[in-house]
Amino acid sequence: MSQMKIRAASASQLWRGASARCAEETRVWKRSGVRARSNKALTLNTLNPNIVKLKCADRGPLVERAEVLEKELAMGALKPFKHVIKANIGDGHALGQRPITYLRQVVACVAFPDLLTKSHIPADVKERAQLLLDSCGGKSMGSYSASHGLEVIRRHVADYIEARDSCPADWRNVCLSAGASRAIKLCLSMFCNDLDGKPSGVLVPVPQYPMYSAALAEFGLVQVDYFLDEERNWGLKVPELQRAVEEASKRCNVRAIVVINPGNPTGQVLTYETIKRVIHFCREHGLFIFADEVHQDNVYAPGCRFHSFKKVLTEMGCEYKDQELASFNSISKGYVCEGGLRGGWVELCNVDPEVRANLDKAISVSVCPTTLGQTAVDCVVKPPMPGEPSYCKWIFEKIAVQESLKQKAHMIASTFNSMPGFQCNIVQGALYAFPRIVLPPRAVDAAVEAGMTPDVFYACKLLEEAGVCVMPGSGFGQRPDTYHFRTTILPQHQLLMEMLDVFRKFHNKFIKEYC
Amino acid sequence: MSQMKIRAASASQLWRGASARCAEETRVWKRSGVRARSNKALTLNTLNPNIVKLKCADRGPLVERAEVLEKELAMGALKPFKHVIKANIGDGHALGQRPITYLRQVVACVAFPDLLTKSHIPADVKERAQLLLDSCGGKSMGSYSASHGLEVIRRHVADYIEARDSCPADWRNVCLSAGASRAIKLCLSMFCNDLDGKPSGVLVPVPQYPMYSAALAEFGLVQVDYFLDEERNWGLKVPELQRAVEEASKRCNVRAIVVINPGNPTGQVLTYETIKRVIHFCREHGLFIFADEVHQDNVYAPGCRFHSFKKVLTEMGCEYKDQELASFNSISKGYVCEGGLRGGWVELCNVDPEVRANLDKAISVSVCPTTLGQTAVDCVVKPPMPGEPSYCKWIFEKIAVQESLKQKAHMIASTFNSMPGFQCNIVQGALYAFPRIVLPPRAVDAAVEAGMTPDVFYACKLLEEAGVCVMPGSGFGQRPDTYHFRTTILPQHQLLMEMLDVFRKFHNKFIKEYC
Repeated sequence: MSQMKIRAASASQLWRGASARCAEETRVWKRSGVRARSNKALTLNTLNPNIVKLKCADRGPLVERAEVLEKELAMGALKPFKHVIKANIGDGHALGQRPITYLRQVVACVAFPDLLTKSHIPADVKERAQLLLDSCGGKSMGSYSASHGLEVIRRHVADYIEARDSCPADWRNVCLSAGASRAIKLCLSMFCNDLDGKPSGVLVPVPQYPMYSAALAEFGLVQVDYFLDEERNWGLKVPELQRAVEEASKRCNVRAIVVINPGNPTGQVLTYETIKRVIHFCREHGLFIFADEVHQDNVYAPGCRFHSFKKVLTEMGCEYKDQELASFNSISKGYVCEGGLRGGWVELCNVDPEVRANLDKAISVSVCPTTLGQTAVDCVVKPPMPGEPSYCKWIFEKIAVQESLKQKAHMIASTFNSMPGFQCNIVQGALYAFPRIVLPPRAVDAAVEAGMTPDVFYACKLLEEAGVCVMPGSGFGQRPDTYHFRTTILPQHQLLMEMLDVFRKFHNKFIKEYC
Repeated sequence: MSQMKIRAASASQLWRGASARCAEETRVWKRSGVRARSNKALTLNTLNPNIVKLKCADRGPLVERAEVLEKELAMGALKPFKHVIKANIGDGHALGQRPITYLRQVVACVAFPDLLTKSHIPADVKERAQLLLDSCGGKSMGSYSASHGLEVIRRHVADYIEARDSCPADWRNVCLSAGASRAIKLCLSMFCNDLDGKPSGVLVPVPQYPMYSAALAEFGLVQVDYFLDEERNWGLKVPELQRAVEEASKRCNVRAIVVINPGNPTGQVLTYETIKRVIHFCREHGLFIFADEVHQDNVYAPGCRFHSFKKVLTEMGCEYKDQELASFNSISKGYVCEGGLRGGWVELCNVDPEVRANLDKAISVSVCPTTLGQTAVDCVVKPPMPGEPSYCKWIFEKIAVQESLKQKAHMIASTFNSMPGFQCNIVQGALYAFPRIVLPPRAVDAAVEAGMTPDVFYACKLLEEAGVCVMPGSGFGQRPDTYHFRTTILPQHQLLMEMLDVFRKFHNKFIKEYC
């Protein structure tokens, strides 16, 4: 057996092992409704079944394998590649993006205020750091902030939203969180309630960001899929929402909808008109809107523009004043890509006052989000102004990131589209491409034989043979018998060129092997 | 009506308003099992009932009122006090504690690595910062770490535990989290499972840290109270555990126990023998142990010493090798008190491998804890060593905090015990005193008239008349007809002297008024 085959076999074993373990676990759990005899207080039989059912598309065995390969390379192992390119998640800094100086200077100063006396720190950085420190108990970031976040930062977020939308924003409706995901999970948890004997359902786009399927499973909520239209650049169509609601109504109360705009993994940017139609549909069906707008600063395609749900809803007039909306944003994306710092927020609109009071209570019993993450949020929503010492550097760095992303978004889609069997929609926005691949029937057979879905089989081989880690489409959901994968567009120019080159060579070889 | 009475009346209205609102909400919710007609997708009738039932003892109306008073004072309002002393939570920095220089320097350097070239940063700080940066994707804290935390820090935590206990610790059993509370909630969520038609129950000490009651309510788990013995310095007695389990077995499956050591709010430190007895009891009853050991570095009383459950369990031998344990620690307490930075961890011992695999999966679908909080954890578990440039300053700062806490722990208990009607156990450890107060019958009547429990009535008046915010004992649980409050011992010496003086004067006046 050749080296290559051994590698493919070991990847296949890995995947099969993990799948078999999961399947066996589920079987055991299903078989037994009662507490098993064991010396342990907690066994698979007695564990929260929602945890057993959880799936983790973007952090599964493939990512574990990528980490093993990285370690092996670091220890001098010989592979057909020199390093692993982890294009599986939107992690800008991991792929070479540099931090924005102003943001990091402010964070460093609030962490270690002695820096406020140093001449190498610009005056506006010091001023901002002092303002934030003055808002903390004992003027220290080590004190807890209010659970909703520091008031001064919530006010700055509201100002930022006002400026973005030209619509009023009330800072009391803004709640800071440790990244958007925490706020999203908190808001989803409000729907854990069986009404008329049926669980709550939440409309989720397919393909979707797998955090949603995981959170819904964790909370025992029903995921109601609506398919995006790949032929129309992953368009969101109201008749499809209608179909999804009608079909799901037998098994659950559909009470909310998640819209990801710009789309993850699909990269589409919704038009003003589409958003209007979605809001209208939600009002008609009494749906609470989760607007996942964490990629709002990542829009590239000519003619595309980000419109927030909040703005469109407000402009639809007082007829829609009861339409509930939670809009999420994060510093993990945009042009700063500060995922590790954990900063984000939700703006809540038109939520029932009694519900708000209870949600505020639930927020209050949690400890505050990290104050340093909050600081980073402040720098994003209130960057340096023209005339301030840090302005030129800041705008230079920001534009460089944005221009680079724009180029890469274009380059990645056009490269994929030049490859046989690939079909990739324009990356209008966000940080990912989600191309469709047509796999030869023999590859599909080989995947089945290896106990994998064909997209997983392809991604496994890509990792083992070329060192590129992408996420198979099945983790995001895809129409039956279509195969995709998600790759981020974030690798820095040189790395992306290398990745696309490696990709092309791998794909040609793959096609030759299975044709 | 005098100024004083107006103030008392307004506090009473505030409290009654909040209570009435809560009660009404609960009534409405109970009355209606079905979805109410409303334009909103989410109303009180259709909200997750566990959120409606949530209570927030240490962040309720009293804290809100304290914040209003602070704002009024800042705007120049005349009050009988110049500032509000927020002794309600263990928030060291808010009460004047200074950060540990080494920790903050490392955090600043990883946030803004340009500092690594500056001569005013000590070499060991630079070295540590570089080590941590090298472990991050793209050498930036802005990249996501693994969901369990950076491996290098998990290894340092394991080393720290090994040195503490003289027992082996496996870094793979250590999971970093954004403060201990996130890890505690994650572990509690494993027990959400009705077995034989009964929900899971968790033994919780009374008095207890209210995060537990809130988390249990949120997860729909049954809180099974076991009372600590106030007469024996809040001792934990196995017969009381036995009683609690027996009584609760009718309504739930008791599956886990929370032990807080050193105690919050009660300040007791468990002896080696007591921990042994508790572990033995847990094995007999198949209970998973939650060892909340976040105050392990805060032990003051002569003869008292912290023993970790992990150490005792390990030393009990292989007969106990199946006893499950989750031990929690945090950088929010100890001598650093960095609550705002959000760093903590859990060590999992003897957990069933299939359960572990599923828990790891649940951790993996969540985004990592803040990398800067993880950095702070690293500084706590691996501080400067003798001979390193930062060692002297670090040890000086550490000892200063610890000595100060020791003095304050003593001072606060002895001051309370010198006041009529007060009875305060020795503060052996942790950051709080929880004195019992005997209130005159007329004060109890006045409380009833004001629609408050007597401890709330006392705490309200203390806030309105003296500007000191403490937490009423009812939020932590107390035996019927006993009244307590919790105050932190954290105010800096001068502030604490002032607080105790104000307290004494207020109490004398209160007793005179109601005697």
